[in-house]
Amino acid sequence: MTVTVKRIFHFHEGNANMTSLLGGKGANLAEMTNIGLPTPPGFTITTDVCREYYKCNGRLPEGLIDEVTAALTELEKVKNQTFGNADNPLLVSVRSGSVTSMPGMMDTILNLGLNDQTVKGLARNAQDARFAYDCYRRLIQMFGNVVFGIESYSFEIKLHELKSKKKYENDSDIPAEDLLVLIEEFKQLIRYQVSREFPQDVHEQLRLAIEAVFQSWNNQRAKVYRKAYGIPSEQGTAVNIQSMVFGNLGEQSGTGVLFTRNPSNGEDELYGEFLTNAQGEDVVAGVRTPIPILYLKQKFPFIYDQLFETSYLLEKQYKDMQDIEFTIENQQLYILQTRNGKRTAQASVKIAVDLSKEGVITKEEALQRIEVNQLEQLFHRSIDDENELKVIGKGLPASSGAASGQVVFDPDTAQELSMDGKKVILVRIETTPEDIHGVLASQGVLTSRGGMTSHAAVVARGMGKPCVCGCSELELDQDENCFTVEGIAVQEGDWISIDGSTGRVILGQIKLKDPEISDELSTLLEWADDIRDLKVYANADNGKDAKKAREFGAEGIGLCRTEHMFMSPSRLPIVQSMIMAQSYEERKIHLDRLMPWQQSDFEELFSEMNGLPVTIRLLDPPLHEFLPKLEELLLQKQRIDLGVDKDVDRNELESLIVKVRNLHEMNPMLGQRGCRLGILYPEIYDMQIEAIFRAILSSLQKGLEVKPQLMIPLISDVNELKRLKALVDQVAEEILGEELKYCNYEVGTMIEVPRAALTANEIAQYAEFFSYGTNDLTQMTFGYSRDDAEGKFLDQYTEEKILDHNPFEVLDQKGVGRLIQWSAEQGKMVKPKLKTGVCGEHGGNKESIFFCQQIGLDYVSCSPFRIPLARIAAAQSAIELN
Amino acid sequence: MTVTVKRIFHFHEGNANMTSLLGGKGANLAEMTNIGLPTPPGFTITTDVCREYYKCNGRLPEGLIDEVTAALTELEKVKNQTFGNADNPLLVSVRSGSVTSMPGMMDTILNLGLNDQTVKGLARNAQDARFAYDCYRRLIQMFGNVVFGIESYSFEIKLHELKSKKKYENDSDIPAEDLLVLIEEFKQLIRYQVSREFPQDVHEQLRLAIEAVFQSWNNQRAKVYRKAYGIPSEQGTAVNIQSMVFGNLGEQSGTGVLFTRNPSNGEDELYGEFLTNAQGEDVVAGVRTPIPILYLKQKFPFIYDQLFETSYLLEKQYKDMQDIEFTIENQQLYILQTRNGKRTAQASVKIAVDLSKEGVITKEEALQRIEVNQLEQLFHRSIDDENELKVIGKGLPASSGAASGQVVFDPDTAQELSMDGKKVILVRIETTPEDIHGVLASQGVLTSRGGMTSHAAVVARGMGKPCVCGCSELELDQDENCFTVEGIAVQEGDWISIDGSTGRVILGQIKLKDPEISDELSTLLEWADDIRDLKVYANADNGKDAKKAREFGAEGIGLCRTEHMFMSPSRLPIVQSMIMAQSYEERKIHLDRLMPWQQSDFEELFSEMNGLPVTIRLLDPPLHEFLPKLEELLLQKQRIDLGVDKDVDRNELESLIVKVRNLHEMNPMLGQRGCRLGILYPEIYDMQIEAIFRAILSSLQKGLEVKPQLMIPLISDVNELKRLKALVDQVAEEILGEELKYCNYEVGTMIEVPRAALTANEIAQYAEFFSYGTNDLTQMTFGYSRDDAEGKFLDQYTEEKILDHNPFEVLDQKGVGRLIQWSAEQGKMVKPKLKTGVCGEHGGNKESIFFCQQIGLDYVSCSPFRIPLARIAAAQSAIELN
Repeated sequence: MTVTVKRIFHFHEGNANMTSLLGGKGANLAEMTNIGLPTPPGFTITTDVCREYYKCNGRLPEGLIDEVTAALTELEKVKNQTFGNADNPLLVSVRSGSVTSMPGMMDTILNLGLNDQTVKGLARNAQDARFAYDCYRRLIQMFGNVVFGIESYSFEIKLHELKSKKKYENDSDIPAEDLLVLIEEFKQLIRYQVSREFPQDVHEQLRLAIEAVFQSWNNQRAKVYRKAYGIPSEQGTAVNIQSMVFGNLGEQSGTGVLFTRNPSNGEDELYGEFLTNAQGEDVVAGVRTPIPILYLKQKFPFIYDQLFETSYLLEKQYKDMQDIEFTIENQQLYILQTRNGKRTAQASVKIAVDLSKEGVITKEEALQRIEVNQLEQLFHRSIDDENELKVIGKGLPASSGAASGQVVFDPDTAQELSMDGKKVILVRIETTPEDIHGVLASQGVLTSRGGMTSHAAVVARGMGKPCVCGCSELELDQDENCFTVEGIAVQEGDWISIDGSTGRVILGQIKLKDPEISDELSTLLEWADDIRDLKVYANADNGKDAKKAREFGAEGIGLCRTEHMFMSPSRLPIVQSMIMAQSYEERKIHLDRLMPWQQSDFEELFSEMNGLPVTIRLLDPPLHEFLPKLEELLLQKQRIDLGVDKDVDRNELESLIVKVRNLHEMNPMLGQRGCRLGILYPEIYDMQIEAIFRAILSSLQKGLEVKPQLMIPLISDVNELKRLKALVDQVAEEILGEELKYCNYEVGTMIEVPRAALTANEIAQYAEFFSYGTNDLTQMTFGYSRDDAEGKFLDQYTEEKILDHNPFEVLDQKGVGRLIQWSAEQGKMVKPKLKTGVCGEHGGNKESIFFCQQIGLDYVSCSPFRIPLARIAAAQSAIELN
Repeated sequence: MTVTVKRIFHFHEGNANMTSLLGGKGANLAEMTNIGLPTPPGFTITTDVCREYYKCNGRLPEGLIDEVTAALTELEKVKNQTFGNADNPLLVSVRSGSVTSMPGMMDTILNLGLNDQTVKGLARNAQDARFAYDCYRRLIQMFGNVVFGIESYSFEIKLHELKSKKKYENDSDIPAEDLLVLIEEFKQLIRYQVSREFPQDVHEQLRLAIEAVFQSWNNQRAKVYRKAYGIPSEQGTAVNIQSMVFGNLGEQSGTGVLFTRNPSNGEDELYGEFLTNAQGEDVVAGVRTPIPILYLKQKFPFIYDQLFETSYLLEKQYKDMQDIEFTIENQQLYILQTRNGKRTAQASVKIAVDLSKEGVITKEEALQRIEVNQLEQLFHRSIDDENELKVIGKGLPASSGAASGQVVFDPDTAQELSMDGKKVILVRIETTPEDIHGVLASQGVLTSRGGMTSHAAVVARGMGKPCVCGCSELELDQDENCFTVEGIAVQEGDWISIDGSTGRVILGQIKLKDPEISDELSTLLEWADDIRDLKVYANADNGKDAKKAREFGAEGIGLCRTEHMFMSPSRLPIVQSMIMAQSYEERKIHLDRLMPWQQSDFEELFSEMNGLPVTIRLLDPPLHEFLPKLEELLLQKQRIDLGVDKDVDRNELESLIVKVRNLHEMNPMLGQRGCRLGILYPEIYDMQIEAIFRAILSSLQKGLEVKPQLMIPLISDVNELKRLKALVDQVAEEILGEELKYCNYEVGTMIEVPRAALTANEIAQYAEFFSYGTNDLTQMTFGYSRDDAEGKFLDQYTEEKILDHNPFEVLDQKGVGRLIQWSAEQGKMVKPKLKTGVCGEHGGNKESIFFCQQIGLDYVSCSPFRIPLARIAAAQSAIELN
C-alpha cells in the first residue's frame, strides 16, 4: 500500500497555522512544542482522516492503524516507556480536536494503555497504588462512557455509593483496595449494560478510542453546538494522542485552567482555577469546586511565575488572550493546551482595545477581533433597583447580566416552556454538555456546583446569558422539582432572578435596567465610525426607543412600525371599533379619535431625532390581528347556544363573528395587509398621513429640523406606490400649505415582495428610497412562512445541511440577496440618488451587514441594542472589503 | 378658441378602420354609409371626447356643444328637418358606441328632439297621433332611465297598469289619448323621483343625453362586463347621433336583428328576429317575443331579398359574419348598425373553417379568428341519457350545452350560493344587464320571456353557459321564490336541468356527458397542429381524465396530482391514520396499505398514455388538509365538556386535536408541504416512488412503452432536489433491477418558489425538466394568497386598474414572467436538453400560451377540456410570433 497523504503529525512537525488539518488543539500543541513550552510529546491524526472515516461509512481508513503504531513506537522512544508493557507502561490521552473550538462538546479519554497488568507497573513505578488504580478506574469510566455510550452517571453512582458507605469525603481519600473493588464494579457495569468486556488489549483500547472520537463529531450535543455557532459539519475533528502526565499523583500535583486575562471583564490579570490531586476533566466538569489561580502563588510560587511567563509568551505568540490547560506532576509544570480564550463581549472589547493600545495589534485588527454576533450580550440588562432585593443565595458570577424567569429543573422543560413564550431560569446541580438546548432556551442558568470554567459558565458566556455557578447553599431535589435555600423552598414555576455579574440569586421577578456603554466600547465604536461607509439606523417605534437608539449612535430611524401604536390597551378598543365599522363614515369617526394619538407619537419621534431622518411605515398587519380569534368566539357562541353563558350580548357576538370571518384569511401573510389596506381603506392611511404631517407642522413650528420619510409597505406593483404617493403628496399640501417648502419629506417603499424587486426599475420612479424588508422577502422568496418553518422543518433543514443557515438569521445571498442586489442596481439606474437599506432582523446580523456593504447599499436599520454591533460590523466589512 | 382636434365626424367622413376613435358602431355606420347602404345620416362624437370628459371630472369639454350644434345644422339640411321645430322636427337617436363591442351594456336614447310642441308636428306629418305619442312616451321613459337614473321598471309598471285597466293586449293597441295620459304620468314620475322636469328644450335634451352616454361608460354593469372580458377602461365610448327612422309607424314598419350566419351553430343561413310596429330596443330587450326572420320572406319579400344582399355585401366587406340591426319604416329598409356578430364557440369554429374553405380567408386567418378563451364552451357537457327525462317546459335554445343546478330567482342569491360551492340555475322573467353577476355565478340561465337575441341569450353565449330563453309556459312568482309549469311548482333550491341546445327544461338533476369534437373543429385542430411549435400536455390525475386528454390531442401528461388519489372516500381514513401515526413504524403500516392503490392508479395512467410521457408529482399539500378542521373539533370537545355530546370518545378526540394543532399552520401555503414533506417524512415519498416504479415494472412487463417523469414539488433549494432525486434513483434501482435499462425515467421539479427560479442554474444540474407551477409562483412572487386575494382586494385592483389583469388568470409577464424567462435561460445554459413548460391554470390561457411561445418554453400543460384550446392558441402564437 502506498501512503500518498501524511495522516499523522508528531507535535514537533506542525504549527499554529495548520488548524484546519490538525484541529485547534493539535495545531496549538505543535506550536507550543516548537516554542519550547513544557508540552508532553504526542501526535495528531488529521481531520482528513475523520472525513475519510465518514466517507467509508464509519470505518477507519486502511493502513491507519499501522501508521498509528509507528508513531506510537516513536513516542515510546522519546518517553522511554512501552505501550502495553507491564513494567514500564506508556500511557496516553486520546482527545478530539476540532477546527473551531467547541469546548466540552466532544470526547476525551485519559490514561489509555492501562489494563490489569500495566496498572501494576504504574503503581510500582509511581510507588503509589492508590494513584495507579485511580487512573485505571478513570480510564474505565471514560472508556465506558465514550466508547460504549454508558452514562457517566452510572459510574458516578457507584463511586458515590462507595464514598458514602466508607465515609470518604474526597475521591482522593479512597484507598487502593477500595479502588480495586470499584474497578471490578465498573467492569461489571460495562458487562451488564453493553455485554462487552473492557478491553485488556491496549491496542484495541486505542483503536476503539480513535473511532469513538471520530464518532463523537456527530453526537447530539456536538450537532446542537455546531448549529448554534454555525460551524460546518464538514470540518471534522482531529485526534490527539499525547503521552500522559498526572495531576492526580498526590498533593504536589494537580491540574488547572488559566486565562491570560480575565475572560469575564477583560482585566489584564491571570485568571483561572486549580485543583490539587486531580486529573483532566475534574476542573472543567465542575465536580469539585476548584480554588482560584492566585492561591498557586502561595502554594507553588515557582510554578506561578512559570505560568505568568508562559502567559506572556503565548499572548505574544498568538496576539490574543489565551485559555491554557496545565497539569502539575510532582511540582513539574506541563502545558497541555492553549487556545484563544472564550470571553464575554465586555472582555472581548476591553482586551481588543487594550491589546491595540499596548501596540500588539492595530485598530483595524482590534475591530476585527470583535465577534459582533456576541456583542449583543453587552446590552443585556442589569438590576434596576438594588434596594429590597430578596437575595437568597450567592454563587460564582459566571456570566454577566441579570435575568428573571420561572424556575425549571431540566433542559427539556426549559425548551417547552420557552416555546410557549415563557421566560425560564434553568436550575441544575451542574450542567453537562447534554443540557445545551435548555441553556439556549433559558433567560439564565443557575447551578449549585462547578466553577467559573465549568460547562455551564463557558456555554452561558458564549451565548451572552447570565449565569451563576457553584451556589453551594442550594439544596436541589430534582425528583421533587424544587430547591431549598435558607429554608425557603422554590418550586418549578416560581419566579427567581439571578445576577450573573455578582453571583446573587434573588427571589421573585425584578425590574431590570438597560446597560451602559463602557469606555473601551466607546473607543472601539469611535474607531469603527471612522472606518465604516454604511449608515446605521434604528428600528424604533416610540420616543423611548428612539432616545435609546440615538444614545447608541443611530443616525436616524429606519423603521417605525405604526401598528405598535395601535396595540396599546387604551387604543385597541377604538381600533377594533374602527375595524367593526359598517360604513366609511362610521370608520372615519373612530379614525378621527385615533389621529391625535398618532400625531403625538410622531411628534415625540421627531423631537428625539431632531435633525435625523425618521422613516415611518404606514399600517402593515392584516386588520384581523386586532380582533379576537375566531375559534374563541365560536366556542363562546356555542356556550350561549347551549345556555351555559348568559351574560353575553348574542347579537354583538354574532356580528363580531361575521366580521372576524369576513376578515379571516387562509394565509394572512399573503393577504389583505400593507399597502393593500391603504388601497382598500384609504381613510386609514389618510388618517396616518395626516397625523404625520400635523406632527411635522407642529415640530417645524417648535423649530425642530424634521426629516420625515414615509414608507409604504408590501408594494408589489408600481401602481400601488403611484397611487399612495399621490395621496401622501396631496395630504402634505393640504396640511403643510406654505410650510411645505421647509419640509423635505420623502416617500419610499419597502421592497419585501419578490415582484417589487423584479420590477424595481418601475418602482424606483416613484420612490426616494428602497428599504428591504428582508423578513418578508425571505418568507416569499423561499416560500417559507416563518411561523410555520422555524421550530419545524427549518430545524431539520439546517441540521441536515439542506440549508447552511436559517435564512431568517443569516441573509440568503443566493436567492434573496440576488433579488436585493439586482433591484438595487436597477433602481439606482433609474434614480441614481435612490437610497437603499435593509431593515428587519438581518440589519443587525454580521454576515448580512457584510453583504449589504458588498453590494453597495446605503444603510442598515436594526433594533436599538444592536446599533453598536452594527457599527462595528459595518467597520469590519469596510476593512475586509475595501 | 382654436379647435385643434376634430371631435365630430359625420358618417360619410369615417370608415371601418376608425374604430378606436369612432367606436365600433360609429366606424361601421361610416363604412356602411360609404358603401352605399341605406343608413340614416348622422355623426359621431369621438372617444377622445369621452376621455376628455373624464379628465375634466365629468364635464363636457369646452366648445363641444357648439360643434355638435354645427353638425346638427348640417344634418338638418340633409334631412330637411329642423331640430326642435314644432312643424317639421328633426328627431335623433343618441347611442353609445364603444371600441370593443359590449352589447346592451350601455345606454341609448331614441326619439330625442320631441317635446310637448314637436310631438304635435310629428303627429301631423306622420298623420298618426298614436305613433307620435308612442315615440314621445318612449323618449321620456328612456330619458328618465338613462339621464335621471330612474328604473325602467317604474315606467313599465305604469304602462302595464294602463294596459290592464283598459284591457289593451299590445303596446300598439294603446290609443293616442291614453298615451297622452301616460306621458303626463311619466313626467310626474320623474318629478316625484328626482325632483326634476323632463326638459322641453331639445338642446338641453341632447346635452344631457350626451353626458349620460359618457357617464354610462362607468356604470356598474359596463364595469362588470369590461372586467369579465378584459376590456381596458381607457377605451371610452363614442356617442352616435343619428337621424331617426321609425319601426313603430304601424304594421308596415318594424325593427329587427339579423345575423348573416347562425350564431349558435355557424350554419350559413340568415338568422334573426323581427317585430312589427316596434322600435329600437323592443327586440333585444326581450319584452315581446319576436318572429323569426324567415317570416319576412312572406311578409316583405322585397325587403328580405334586400337584407340577403346586404348580408352578402357586408360579409364580403368585413370578411366575417355580421350582426345587423335594421328598421323598416313604411316598407323602406334602413340599416342602423353592423358589427362582427357574437357567436358561440361552435359557430365561431364552423364560420372560420367555412370562410377559409370559401376562400374568403386563409387557414392562418381562420385560426386567428378563434377567440380561444371562448373555445372552452365547446366542451360544455350535454345530456348523457335522453331516456326518462322529466321535461317540464320548452323555450328557445339560446346557448348550447346542458346544465343542472338548484333554482335561484335572483342574481345576488346566485352569487352567494355559488360562492358556497353550490351549483345554481338562475331563473328570471327576463335578464337585464344588471343581472350579469348572477349569470356569471350560475351553471345556466332560464328565462320566461325574450328571444335568442335577448340579453340573457347574448350574455350566456358569450360566457359559454347553457341558456334557455322565452319559456313562456313558466309562471314565475318572484315574491314567493317559485315557478309553476304544467302544474308542477318548483321552489328555490329545487334541482332542475336545462338543455341550451334544444331549449328543454327538465325537472331534477341529470347526468351530463362530455362533448365531442365537430368535424370543423377537427379540421381546425389539424391546421393548428401543422403550425404550432409548443407541445400540449394534459393535467390529469386518473385514467379517465388521461383517456379524455388523449382524445383531445394531449401529447402527454404534464401534471398528475397524486394527492387527488389520497382524497377518495375509501382511502381517506387510511391516509388519516397514516398522519395520526405516532411512529415511523405505525405510519409505515398505513402507507403499505395505500401502496397497491397508488400502484394501480399509476398503472392505469401508463396504460392510457402508452408511448407518451407521464409526469407524476409527488404529494404536495400540507397533511392537515386531510384532517378535520380545528374549530369543529374544539366545538365538539366543548360540547362533550358541557355534557351535551356523550357518544364521542373523548380521548380519541383529544389526541386528534393535539395532532391537528400540531399540524396547524399560520400560512399553510408557505408551510410544511411539497418536498418539505418528502424530507420530513421520507417514508411517504418512498411509498409513492415505490408505487410508481412497481407500476412501471408491471407496465413494462405488459409490453407498454412507459415514459415516466417524476416531479418533485416546491423545491426552493437544490439540496432538496439532490436528496430526493437520490431517493428516486435508489428506489428505481431496487424495484427495477435489471429492467432499469428499459425505462428512461426522468426526475424534474416544479419551479414554483421564487428562490427556485433564482437558483435555476444550480437546480438544473439535478433536474431533467422544469415545470413552472405558475399558480404558486404567482402567489409567492406577488405575495398574494389566491384564497384571500380573489373576491377581495384583487377585484378592486383589476377594477381600478392597479393591475391590468388578475394574475391568476393571465400570467404576469413583468414579474412572474421575468422569473420564468430568466430561470429557463439559466437552466438551459447548464443543461441544454432541459425541458421547460408551464402547468397550472395559465397553461390553458391564451395570453400565457403566447408568452410561453415567446420565451421559448417547450410545452404547456392544461386540463383535458382545454387541450384543443391550447393547441389553437399555440398555433396562433406561432403565427403571430414566428
